[in-house]
Amino acid sequence: MTKITIAKGDGIGPEIMDATLSILTAAGAKLEIDEIEVGEKVYLAGNTAGISKESWEVIRKNKVFLKAPITTPQGGGYKSLNVTTRKFLGLYSNIRPCTSFHPFVKTKHPVMDIVIVRENEEDLYAGIEHQQTDEVVQCLKLISRPGCEKIVRYAFEFAKKYNRKKVTCFTKDNIMKQTDGLFHKVFDEIAVEYPEIENEHWIIDIGAAKLADTPEAFDVIVMPNLYGDVMSDVAAQIAGSVGLAGSANIGEECAMFEAIHGSAPRRAGQNLANPSGLLQGAVLMLNHIGQTKVAEKVQNAWLKTIEDGIHTYDIYNEEISTKKVGTKEFAEA
Amino acid sequence: MTKITIAKGDGIGPEIMDATLSILTAAGAKLEIDEIEVGEKVYLAGNTAGISKESWEVIRKNKVFLKAPITTPQGGGYKSLNVTTRKFLGLYSNIRPCTSFHPFVKTKHPVMDIVIVRENEEDLYAGIEHQQTDEVVQCLKLISRPGCEKIVRYAFEFAKKYNRKKVTCFTKDNIMKQTDGLFHKVFDEIAVEYPEIENEHWIIDIGAAKLADTPEAFDVIVMPNLYGDVMSDVAAQIAGSVGLAGSANIGEECAMFEAIHGSAPRRAGQNLANPSGLLQGAVLMLNHIGQTKVAEKVQNAWLKTIEDGIHTYDIYNEEISTKKVGTKEFAEA
Ligand SMILES: CC(C)[C@H](C(=O)O)[C@@H](O)C(=O)O
Ligand SMILES: CC(C)[C@H](C(=O)O)[C@@H](O)C(=O)O
Repeated sequence: MTKITIAKGDGIGPEIMDATLSILTAAGAKLEIDEIEVGEKVYLAGNTAGISKESWEVIRKNKVFLKAPITTPQGGGYKSLNVTTRKFLGLYSNIRPCTSFHPFVKTKHPVMDIVIVRENEEDLYAGIEHQQTDEVVQCLKLISRPGCEKIVRYAFEFAKKYNRKKVTCFTKDNIMKQTDGLFHKVFDEIAVEYPEIENEHWIIDIGAAKLADTPEAFDVIVMPNLYGDVMSDVAAQIAGSVGLAGSANIGEECAMFEAIHGSAPRRAGQNLANPSGLLQGAVLMLNHIGQTKVAEKVQNAWLKTIEDGIHTYDIYNEEISTKKVGTKEFAEA
Repeated sequence: MTKITIAKGDGIGPEIMDATLSILTAAGAKLEIDEIEVGEKVYLAGNTAGISKESWEVIRKNKVFLKAPITTPQGGGYKSLNVTTRKFLGLYSNIRPCTSFHPFVKTKHPVMDIVIVRENEEDLYAGIEHQQTDEVVQCLKLISRPGCEKIVRYAFEFAKKYNRKKVTCFTKDNIMKQTDGLFHKVFDEIAVEYPEIENEHWIIDIGAAKLADTPEAFDVIVMPNLYGDVMSDVAAQIAGSVGLAGSANIGEECAMFEAIHGSAPRRAGQNLANPSGLLQGAVLMLNHIGQTKVAEKVQNAWLKTIEDGIHTYDIYNEEISTKKVGTKEFAEA
């Protein structure tokens, strides 16, 4: 039995969380669940952080956190809780597998199996912005050597553990010679410690172009925070849909698991949403807490459903799908 | 007769410039040419700017500059001449058309006709970086209201002039609320002045994912400098090849035209390179200086060659191409 914290979030969050939990239970996951409230309701009740002190304590105590998407209200000095959580819990590594499921999910890139390892605390996400003059605003991009070392080492260790052949690094160090230059330099330093794993570096512009055009040329890709944000959405979408990708946010102490997509408020409450992203997050979680057999069972059941053509609206395709289903029906299948 | 400045640059630069100039001459372009030396040789002769004072004067006097790719030496405090030129001449707008030429050039995206309008002076390209402590480095992202206004207005005026239906804006203003927030705000302000043109905004992560997956959903896209750098390579590559795209860098006084790809030193001197990118830059230049008939003639001849399947190695494809040719043969065709 592992105690975990969950938050159902906003928009489609509650539906996909219920679907995910029902699947985990059916597969025999041994979980004890502490539910906390985060996101829109908490914000609008006057807490600009979107989370209470008590909830932080619960998360820290249980160490494992499964989080549905949340909505940050526009304007008014609200901070993104996603980002705060990553920083507050020291979740320095964001792992985003992007795999195509050809021929069961429509894709132009049938052989794609990438893992993006995204630095998760630094870069422009440090949130240091200010108005310099009436007409000029600035944001600070911050890169530290320990930050680079942790994430680059994580990427190589990950590649080693899962028998991946190559780690690629994306930066824009022809322009940002000090910041991105440091990331690239640390990459080169650590790469030599893993002679059995191939390594390469691409300037992000042409690297992104290659990724969008020939994703089969990549394996593990490590990069600074903002590039990782954009590239993981690109990779997940061209593999099939951002709706299919989950992510693990890993720190020394705690870990948070989530879908990579947002809370899609316009789709909420209609039993439309695809729970696959959060479910993939949950599979990563089960592996993380050592319930690997259950993880495999869930993943196989999910694959079988996808292969049977039982698809939610977002991946439904007349040529491939056999049945268009809602969130609940998908979970039952 | 229009006097222009040219620079043959490094790597494949001289070959593709010679090819481009021979095509322009054959098409009857009325150009008087001032050639200057920029790039590697100038750098290595001890000028860290990669260009002499006299050359700047020539560029400023002639106002129109056709530039082949250059190589910036690694390390040693060299600054990117591309970036310096854009800033020095106030070339605030970087226009990058990305069109697919299905069925003549292989692409997974047959109906794609996008123009990326990239802000060209600000953002992380301001080049303000410093080492804060032994282990922490920073780079400043700088966004100004006049900068945003100029580029957003340019995008809408461009759409109006060329009968484009929609202008899309990409930012990451859910994280960078002040900097990217300003860009988005100015976009919204200016958009209302063009009620006949549709407008929309996407967060860059999901926007990039859509662009890579369904580029046919976009028309004109305006964005800050770094996003524009990455997204234009993505768009050009999935349309067919970064080797086919040219760009116009436009300021109040001067304008520079170039290919969007680099100097590919490994391909240099082998009569291999595809001159199409620089040629497309030259077509934009001819239109800019009012030689629109010649521009049309060059563009039609280029299209005919591509349609006839006479392709350089980079776009050569057994199913489509009829003849694999070198730089010179392509230009002759
Ligand atoms: C919601 C947003 C703050 C977040 C991010 O930018 O990291 C999201 O896009 C993601 O990728 O998890
Ligand atoms: C060479 C480099 C400095 C340049 C840029 O980053 O702008 C290039 O990638 C481009 O897109 O023109």
